[in-house]
Amino acid sequence: MYRSHNCGVLRSSDIDTVVTLSGWVQKSRDLGGMTFIDLRDRYGITQLAFNMEVNEELCLAARKLGREFVVQVEGTVIERSSKNKNIPTGDIEIKVSALKVLNASKTPPFTIEDNTDGGEDIRMKYRYLDLRRKTVRENLMLRSKIAIETRKFLSDLEFIEVETPVLIKSTPEGARDFVVPSRMNANQFYALPQSPQTFKQLLMVAGFDKYFQIVKCFRDEDLRADRQPEFTQIDCEMSFVEQDDILNTFEELTRHLIKETKGIDLPTFPRMDYADAMRLYGSDKPDIRFGMEFVEINELTQNKGFKVFDDAELILAINAEGCANYTRKQLDALTKWVKRPQIGALGLIYVKYNEDGTYKSSVDKFYSQEDLAEWCAKAGAKPGDLLFVISGEKDKARKQMGELRLKMGTELGLRNPEVFAPLWVMDFPLLEWDEDSQRYHAMHHPFTSPKMEDFDKIEESPAEVRANAYDLVLNGSEVGGGSIRIHDRELQRIMFKHLGFTDEEAQNQFGFLMDAFEYGAPPHGGIAFGLDRLCSIIGGADSIRDFIAFPKNNSGRDVMIDAPSPLAQDQLDELSIANVEKVTAE
Amino acid sequence: MYRSHNCGVLRSSDIDTVVTLSGWVQKSRDLGGMTFIDLRDRYGITQLAFNMEVNEELCLAARKLGREFVVQVEGTVIERSSKNKNIPTGDIEIKVSALKVLNASKTPPFTIEDNTDGGEDIRMKYRYLDLRRKTVRENLMLRSKIAIETRKFLSDLEFIEVETPVLIKSTPEGARDFVVPSRMNANQFYALPQSPQTFKQLLMVAGFDKYFQIVKCFRDEDLRADRQPEFTQIDCEMSFVEQDDILNTFEELTRHLIKETKGIDLPTFPRMDYADAMRLYGSDKPDIRFGMEFVEINELTQNKGFKVFDDAELILAINAEGCANYTRKQLDALTKWVKRPQIGALGLIYVKYNEDGTYKSSVDKFYSQEDLAEWCAKAGAKPGDLLFVISGEKDKARKQMGELRLKMGTELGLRNPEVFAPLWVMDFPLLEWDEDSQRYHAMHHPFTSPKMEDFDKIEESPAEVRANAYDLVLNGSEVGGGSIRIHDRELQRIMFKHLGFTDEEAQNQFGFLMDAFEYGAPPHGGIAFGLDRLCSIIGGADSIRDFIAFPKNNSGRDVMIDAPSPLAQDQLDELSIANVEKVTAE
Repeated sequence: MYRSHNCGVLRSSDIDTVVTLSGWVQKSRDLGGMTFIDLRDRYGITQLAFNMEVNEELCLAARKLGREFVVQVEGTVIERSSKNKNIPTGDIEIKVSALKVLNASKTPPFTIEDNTDGGEDIRMKYRYLDLRRKTVRENLMLRSKIAIETRKFLSDLEFIEVETPVLIKSTPEGARDFVVPSRMNANQFYALPQSPQTFKQLLMVAGFDKYFQIVKCFRDEDLRADRQPEFTQIDCEMSFVEQDDILNTFEELTRHLIKETKGIDLPTFPRMDYADAMRLYGSDKPDIRFGMEFVEINELTQNKGFKVFDDAELILAINAEGCANYTRKQLDALTKWVKRPQIGALGLIYVKYNEDGTYKSSVDKFYSQEDLAEWCAKAGAKPGDLLFVISGEKDKARKQMGELRLKMGTELGLRNPEVFAPLWVMDFPLLEWDEDSQRYHAMHHPFTSPKMEDFDKIEESPAEVRANAYDLVLNGSEVGGGSIRIHDRELQRIMFKHLGFTDEEAQNQFGFLMDAFEYGAPPHGGIAFGLDRLCSIIGGADSIRDFIAFPKNNSGRDVMIDAPSPLAQDQLDELSIANVEKVTAE
Repeated sequence: MYRSHNCGVLRSSDIDTVVTLSGWVQKSRDLGGMTFIDLRDRYGITQLAFNMEVNEELCLAARKLGREFVVQVEGTVIERSSKNKNIPTGDIEIKVSALKVLNASKTPPFTIEDNTDGGEDIRMKYRYLDLRRKTVRENLMLRSKIAIETRKFLSDLEFIEVETPVLIKSTPEGARDFVVPSRMNANQFYALPQSPQTFKQLLMVAGFDKYFQIVKCFRDEDLRADRQPEFTQIDCEMSFVEQDDILNTFEELTRHLIKETKGIDLPTFPRMDYADAMRLYGSDKPDIRFGMEFVEINELTQNKGFKVFDDAELILAINAEGCANYTRKQLDALTKWVKRPQIGALGLIYVKYNEDGTYKSSVDKFYSQEDLAEWCAKAGAKPGDLLFVISGEKDKARKQMGELRLKMGTELGLRNPEVFAPLWVMDFPLLEWDEDSQRYHAMHHPFTSPKMEDFDKIEESPAEVRANAYDLVLNGSEVGGGSIRIHDRELQRIMFKHLGFTDEEAQNQFGFLMDAFEYGAPPHGGIAFGLDRLCSIIGGADSIRDFIAFPKNNSGRDVMIDAPSPLAQDQLDELSIANVEKVTAE
């Protein structure tokens, strides 16, 4: 037996108990006659005490232990003379009677502390040491907790977890697939799923009624900072449901998860149309932990001789409360920030509503104090507030102002990660125009049902057709998205046609699903949550990598195991493939 | 709202309630003035009643409904005149007041009944219809139940579920990997994991203490009847444990699963050495639902002039109770069966212990009644029993007799799928000789620790070194297997050496793990259960395919979605690979 207790469990009530503990040497302190060691495991830290006078040999052995040595000790729980109120075991220590080194350790390449001195690269190479840090371990424990609570919640509602296959069929639609050459079927390939979408719909056709799965999905995209080639979805589907049934069910799930992990009771989630979200926040995933909604001030600003506004399609203002005292330097920095190519604004106009009731603006020469007063009134500004104005083409101005709003929210401390502001965004457009391919793409995916009341516009103005689609937004991030699906073969055929599929292509790629619709497909819909993102937001962190045990870097590499790596020629031969020179675009 | 209740929930206590139901038309019956329809969903079947006299139009509409149509009805719960005691809703029916067809259905290509007329091929092509059958759906619900109960049980014991990566590194050791070309790292490949073995060990080095994961694994092997290229493991690992800690924990888990799914309380699981299992049952996974242990009768049979026995290394008998009345035809059939190439016995000798106390044997001319009496006595045979004797080279004779024992167990009805007989098989050999490569392979895997008391034999007689390895056997199938791992770098290096790795190869393939052992690796061990197999045994079925929602056929194809399939040239180009002619072995 390696231990009678773990390192987080002993209390004053255990005093005089003889115990065996095992764990890692977190640190040791020599105080003349005494040596103290903090023994660490996943559950906590327990102080070990060695006394030179009582047992010199043992104490000397303890002094030789390096950081991260794995040891086993026997001893008696005693009261601590100077108690540590910061840890649950702080009232006691172990008077050690026997010590055994289970494994030595080289000096770790970085310190195993909450705030480590290790950079990203070295921590990823030695991820097994990085994972020893309490912050990282707690992130993964949070993830485990969210997963099990999700499963318990959905199982209690009679959802069945069904595993869908990982080796499936490649489809050109959507993002790029990872593929797997088939040895037994030469020159044929499986694809790894980007989502179990078609399979979960088939499970509805099969009458499974309520399905879920926490499942790995794969996208071979160029990786941006916070993307991973493999990611995890909480994937769900229900039959005989309308949109509200799904929203209510998964609002409850989200509320349950926040309650179980953070102890917070969330009220009913607000719902907002996509059109309103774009109009008020310039984003389909607004962070509503704070207000600062957009105010459209075209009528107050145009035709007064300021050409920039006169030429603009849209003029937007937001009110930054209490910021009238911003310095020239601060305002210049913000102007420079919005003019960066990533944001792309042509400029930033401000109006200070001074405490003395006067107004000061960067466009004073075009607008009177009365004009500026009107703007401020419309934006709900009080003395001491600061208005920002951005103008231009409608969609661009909204996007730019949306970015500025988030930046101001951050600067003003309005985006507290311990506050949770969920929002359902509804009634997304069915289609969006893609400049590259010069055709419409499905905004969600090709299986999303249109709002039938809009469907007569599909030929004339396809962009105006709304979908029965919804996203769950949490603190400005999309954590879930779904839709009511098409369950009628003919409607699905029409949708594919509008997405530029020939009937033959549609049948070739998705024939199995369209065929299934002919054998009694029930009305159905669902949702998928991004588990990595959900964990990072509930955990109050920005990066999803902190919530993935073994993440890949931006080149898609696992630097710890050094993957991907070349294959031996006989492996390639068996798979009937050959390496070729990289084809570069002309 | 599509439904107020599901089709399995209404009872007499609901009489007079107005309800809305949705589901599939299972069947309909026209009885002159009345039409009855069985409406089906996942939860059950509810009878719908239509009366020609009350509402002719509605009744005529109901008569037009085909099998598998999806309909929604409104109506009132009424008492049934002729009650059906076979279904929980059998006391009531719905007096329908409104009917809506939600979706039509073509005639299914096979009947959606427990015993279908559809062959394997057609059912796999239309798997979404096959999954509508109650038996198949219940298998998958059992699987879902086993998974959630496993997670609850392990979470309650503070196991953390951690997702390990799917895109990892190819290693030549063991079975063939599926590989994934990396677009961003040209001419390099990921591999899909055959198990998360090294990652779970790293999680122990990271101090996670108790890990589990229900996880897809992949092996590109030639598929036999009951193998799938992707399969699911319940993968577990614990730190600071000895073998008994693991056996006790996972025995409890298994007991919990059988209790929750079958309502059966299992007693303490027996444990048996590998050597005894081979000696008594000729198998490392004996089915101990029945006895029929092997009896070694060399000393009773040799040197009596029967050359076959005199030349044999081992002579084994089993006693088939009550089979003395087997006919010549039956005995000939069994003899033919053991002589098939798959079994490979040279012959089968029998001794009938007749009810009258006499003995009749196929080797009467070599052995006296007294001889045969001794054999029967040693095998514990009573009058009316039948002894089978197989002889030959030790390992072969055991294997052949093991097969015969199972066949006789089946013939005699001793292998009831509703009876559960678990068994721990312990102390496996560390290494096994591989004829093909003319070297030793790890019997479990290269990370299994040897029994240190045997380790001095590693140079001289490696086959005699036992491992700290164990399998959980249930009803004659291996459902789980694991070991105490090596956690010392030097010992791991020696193991790799004995497995034929050069130091460089070992470092290149598993350097990350051996390096990790130098930073305070704790003693650890674990186990992995084959979920597909575990489900099939608990579900009382032979084939794991019945417990997989979308299985692949023996060519590794998903015939429903038609995967794998060829890739477009631009996809191949992007991945820097080319198809080549299949290389055939010379």
